[in-house]
Amino acid sequence: MVYSEVNNIISIVTGGCGFIGSHIVKDLLKSGRIVFVIDNLSLGSFFNLERYENNNLHILQFDLSDRQHCINAFNIILEYGSIHDVWHLAANSNIPAGVENPDVDLKDTFLTTYELLRLMKQYDVKTFHFASSSAIYGDLGTVKLHEGIGPLLPISNYGAMKLASEAQASAAAESFLERVNIFRFPNVVGTPATHGVILDFINKLASDSHELHVLGDGTQQKAYLHVSDLVDAMFAISSRKIDVKIDVVNIGPVDDGVTVRWIAEQVVARISPDAKIMYGKGNKGWVGDVPRFNYSTDRLQSYGWSPKLNSSEAVLRAIDEIAIQQGY
Amino acid sequence: MVYSEVNNIISIVTGGCGFIGSHIVKDLLKSGRIVFVIDNLSLGSFFNLERYENNNLHILQFDLSDRQHCINAFNIILEYGSIHDVWHLAANSNIPAGVENPDVDLKDTFLTTYELLRLMKQYDVKTFHFASSSAIYGDLGTVKLHEGIGPLLPISNYGAMKLASEAQASAAAESFLERVNIFRFPNVVGTPATHGVILDFINKLASDSHELHVLGDGTQQKAYLHVSDLVDAMFAISSRKIDVKIDVVNIGPVDDGVTVRWIAEQVVARISPDAKIMYGKGNKGWVGDVPRFNYSTDRLQSYGWSPKLNSSEAVLRAIDEIAIQQGY
Repeated sequence: MVYSEVNNIISIVTGGCGFIGSHIVKDLLKSGRIVFVIDNLSLGSFFNLERYENNNLHILQFDLSDRQHCINAFNIILEYGSIHDVWHLAANSNIPAGVENPDVDLKDTFLTTYELLRLMKQYDVKTFHFASSSAIYGDLGTVKLHEGIGPLLPISNYGAMKLASEAQASAAAESFLERVNIFRFPNVVGTPATHGVILDFINKLASDSHELHVLGDGTQQKAYLHVSDLVDAMFAISSRKIDVKIDVVNIGPVDDGVTVRWIAEQVVARISPDAKIMYGKGNKGWVGDVPRFNYSTDRLQSYGWSPKLNSSEAVLRAIDEIAIQQGY
Repeated sequence: MVYSEVNNIISIVTGGCGFIGSHIVKDLLKSGRIVFVIDNLSLGSFFNLERYENNNLHILQFDLSDRQHCINAFNIILEYGSIHDVWHLAANSNIPAGVENPDVDLKDTFLTTYELLRLMKQYDVKTFHFASSSAIYGDLGTVKLHEGIGPLLPISNYGAMKLASEAQASAAAESFLERVNIFRFPNVVGTPATHGVILDFINKLASDSHELHVLGDGTQQKAYLHVSDLVDAMFAISSRKIDVKIDVVNIGPVDDGVTVRWIAEQVVARISPDAKIMYGKGNKGWVGDVPRFNYSTDRLQSYGWSPKLNSSEAVLRAIDEIAIQQGY
C-alpha cells in the first residue's frame, strides 16, 4: 500500500459493499481517509464491510443510476466536507445477466458512470478512478492485448458498457477532471466472492457432491489475479505522478494463466475429491465469454509493479478462501 | 453507387431527415428499397426529403431514445414487411451542445443506439450500419489514426457517445447481428447543411458582412470529405463480402486537409469579399475540438475506393452549395 497518507479527506467508493470495492474501502480507511460508500446492494452486502466498522466509514444505500438518488447521496456527503476523489466500482459484474437483459448493464454499469460524472462536474470533484475491464478488448484471438491496440470490439454488453464508461471518463477529463485512472481489470479472484467460476463450481458441488458440470470443454485459459494484488496495483497506479490527465493500465499477472479444467480439478480436490467432472462442448462458457486471452501487462510492469501471486497461486488461495466463505 | 439492386426490401434510416441521412435515403430509394425514415426532427427536417417523395419512402416522426416511441415505430414498419437493415444516422451532431448539456449526447446518440439494437434483436434484424466518427480517437497528437490504434480516449461527449455506440454494436454482433458496418466519419461538408464551420461562417457574415470572428487562431487543420463521396464510400463498404461480422472503417480523403484560416478566406471571398477576418486565441475552437488530425484511410483505400474530391475541392463545392442554400 503506497498510497500517500492524508487525513480528513473524503473519498467516495461506489460499489464499496461489493467484492473488490470492499478491499478499496479497507485500504482507504487504513490510510486515514473518510470513506463514503454508495451501493445499491444489488450484488454487494453491508456484511462485507462489517469488519471495517470505523467512525470514518459511512455507507449510503442509493442507486447511482437514478439521478435523484445520486443527488441525494452527494448532498449528504457534501455536508461532511469536500470530496477528494471517487473510486467507481459500482457495476453489474454478472456477465450472463447482462446477456439475458441488457438493461442491467445499461443501468448498473453505464448510467451509474454517467450520473456520477455529471455530479462530479457540478461539485468540482477532480479525481476519478474507474474499474474497467479486459472485456473491453473483445475477442482479438491471439493478438497481444496492450493498451495501444484497437479496434476495441467488446463481445458482451458487460464489456460494451465498460468501454462506454471509459469513453465518458475520457471526455470528462477534457472537460473538468484533473486525473483519471482507468484500471483494466483481469479475472480477479478472492473473497468476499459474489460470482465467478470458483464460487460457481463450489456451489454446484454443494448441491451435488458427485458430479461437477463445467460449461464449455474446459480448455478456456485465462490469467487470474488475486484481489489483494489487484488493489495493491490500483493504489500504485493512482499514486504515480504523471504529466497527462488519463492513465489507462491493464492490470494482471505476468503468466499465461490456467485452464478452466485445472480450476475444476483443484476445486474438486479441495471440496469433494471423488466428484466426477463432466465437460460441455465448445471453448466458450457463454455468449460474451472470451475463450483465450493474451493480456499484456507490460505497461504496469514498466511502472515497477509486479504481483505477489501468479495465476495458479491466486486461484489456489481463492479456492481456499471461498471454500471457507461457503462453509467448507 | 455499387449497392446491389433489390426490390421490396425494407431499410430503416434513422436520422434520415438530416444532412447525411437524407443522402442515404436518396440512394437507397434509387436502388429500389422501401425506406422508412425515423427522425425526431430535432436537427433534421421533412424539407430535406421533399424532393425524393416516392411511394417507397415513409417518414415516421418518433424519438428513438424513448422506448415506447421506438416500439411504436417498429410496429408500424413491421406491418409493411420484414426489415432488412438499419442505417443508424440519428445522433446529436452539435458537439458544443453536448458540452453544454451531456444529456443531449446521452439521449440522441447513445440511447437511440441502445433502444434500436434492443428492438433489432427482438425482431431479428441482422444488419446494422452505424455512423461513427473520427472523434472516437480523441486527441492523439500527430500519431496516425488507423483503425488498429488505441487507447480510444475521446475528448468530447459527442465522441464518447459515438464510441459507446460502437461498443454496443460490437456486443450485438456477438449476440445476434450478422453484419455490422462501423463507418468512422471525417468532417463532412455539403448540403443540406445544419451545422459546421462553413454554415457558421456564412451565418456570421449574414449578420455582419464587415467582420468574420473565427473561434481559435485559425491554424486547426482538418481533412474534409464531400457528402457525395462519404455516401459512396458507405455503400462501397457495406456491399463488400467479408468473412467477419464487423467492419470498422475510417472514411476520409487522402490529403492532409485544409486550415480553418483557408476556409474562412474562401467563405469571405464567396460571400463578402471586403469582410475582415478576426481570429481568436489557441488552436482549439471549443472544448472537445481536436486541433490536428492525422487520419489514416489506408484500409478504405485498400478496398479500392477513393474520393472524387480532395479536401479543398470538397470545401469549395460545399461553400458554393451552402451559400445557395442560405440565399446567396
